[in-house]
Amino acid sequence: MISFNQKIKKRAKDIKSYLCIGIDVNAKALGSDNFEDIKAHSKKIIDATRDIALAFKPNFAFFERWGSEAFKWLEETVDYIGSDCIIIADAKRGDIGNTAGQYAESIFDHFGFDAVTLNPFMGEDSINPFLVHEDKGVFILCRTSNSSAHIFQNQKLNGGLFLYEKVAEWANSLNHKNNIGLVVGATVPQELSRVRDLAPDLPILIPGVGAQGGDLEKSVYEGNKSGIGIINVSRDISFSGDCSVESIRSSAQSYVKKINEALNG
Amino acid sequence: MISFNQKIKKRAKDIKSYLCIGIDVNAKALGSDNFEDIKAHSKKIIDATRDIALAFKPNFAFFERWGSEAFKWLEETVDYIGSDCIIIADAKRGDIGNTAGQYAESIFDHFGFDAVTLNPFMGEDSINPFLVHEDKGVFILCRTSNSSAHIFQNQKLNGGLFLYEKVAEWANSLNHKNNIGLVVGATVPQELSRVRDLAPDLPILIPGVGAQGGDLEKSVYEGNKSGIGIINVSRDISFSGDCSVESIRSSAQSYVKKINEALNG
Repeated sequence: MISFNQKIKKRAKDIKSYLCIGIDVNAKALGSDNFEDIKAHSKKIIDATRDIALAFKPNFAFFERWGSEAFKWLEETVDYIGSDCIIIADAKRGDIGNTAGQYAESIFDHFGFDAVTLNPFMGEDSINPFLVHEDKGVFILCRTSNSSAHIFQNQKLNGGLFLYEKVAEWANSLNHKNNIGLVVGATVPQELSRVRDLAPDLPILIPGVGAQGGDLEKSVYEGNKSGIGIINVSRDISFSGDCSVESIRSSAQSYVKKINEALNG
Repeated sequence: MISFNQKIKKRAKDIKSYLCIGIDVNAKALGSDNFEDIKAHSKKIIDATRDIALAFKPNFAFFERWGSEAFKWLEETVDYIGSDCIIIADAKRGDIGNTAGQYAESIFDHFGFDAVTLNPFMGEDSINPFLVHEDKGVFILCRTSNSSAHIFQNQKLNGGLFLYEKVAEWANSLNHKNNIGLVVGATVPQELSRVRDLAPDLPILIPGVGAQGGDLEKSVYEGNKSGIGIINVSRDISFSGDCSVESIRSSAQSYVKKINEALNG
């Protein structure tokens, strides 16, 4: 069996794309709070970019917002994307073992995602029930891209490490099945560099480019010093230009190109 | 307008109950993986205890496990419980501001919960979009009940505090609308005592009694030194004895009694 981390690396090399596209269509950005319009727009993003996206990352909040009918739409979305792309559930789960097991069954078995984002705050019994699904991947939040992330994640610990560094070390030590990755924001290139040193082989999912203002070139360079760095872009692709298929595809193509240039530059 | 923290205190005093009942019916414990059986059992728990429960706490994982049809059931569950009880969404959300706003709309506006559990790892911009719903409450994970919680939560920080203490201080400082509470496990009475000192007025939701082996009396004592301490019990009530309405009610009544004895003892 090929591990999740091998699988994502293989697709990146095969299609020469390190781009993950976030699917988080909100009513305000779209200018419509008609649920059918929101569904149609998310399908448009998928249609426009399916062959050039290394991965799609639907964010559960933007589905849950609409209640049960949107979870039906989430089930359909996973099917609609199909099995070539890597599909990452951006769910940021973290709960005690018994409960985490239910989330793992939900996300991997019921919905059929290939990977999930997880929160490390509750320690390894909140992660283990996901890891036993050996062909699936988990991306553990390490140093997030948001402005208040530093409050806890950049706390310096008694041993000398920052909390985010401790998370990186710990995640690295749990990677027995080669199915753990990390999430580190493009907004903090220094921390990204440090995480890459502490976890040389782990895939790093890097959000925060585009609307959040993260540095693309530095992120690509640091993320890919070893292992692979996957750049996530959401709003800057989903709501590009006039929001047509052409405009969305053109924005995604431009990101793929810029990432490859940074990789080879 | 009465604040959330006033509201929960008032109901506790009115009905003389500091018991929160977790709704997390899993197939294995029930001995049936028939979705209709699981729905029926959760209704049974509600029917058996509605008048003696300070709050109910449905755990999203045990709904999400069954996909979209279970989110319909979650919508129905909130309606079925009705507006007298406090209904806490055990969702442990934590995401960047833009996304957190969608979760807040989902949990408070769409589903109609009174409160939600949140994860502090991403800092205050992951909490603020919930706090602006002034009549609703948030319970922030502080020191959880699971066995691996200590890995990060009991890290000692350079300033001398443990991470969970820093979370308690921080949550206390954000409580401008009197709608923040904390989650601290009954499995760690020493930490519970420390959190009560750092956040004297915040409601503390205390899971880990029953199946997880936490100490009921110490938890009631420490949690109620000031503020209020709410004891959560899930499996030990939901799957009590022969799982009949009578057996479930009798277990819940016994907990209410034991808590009140510890309060007055």
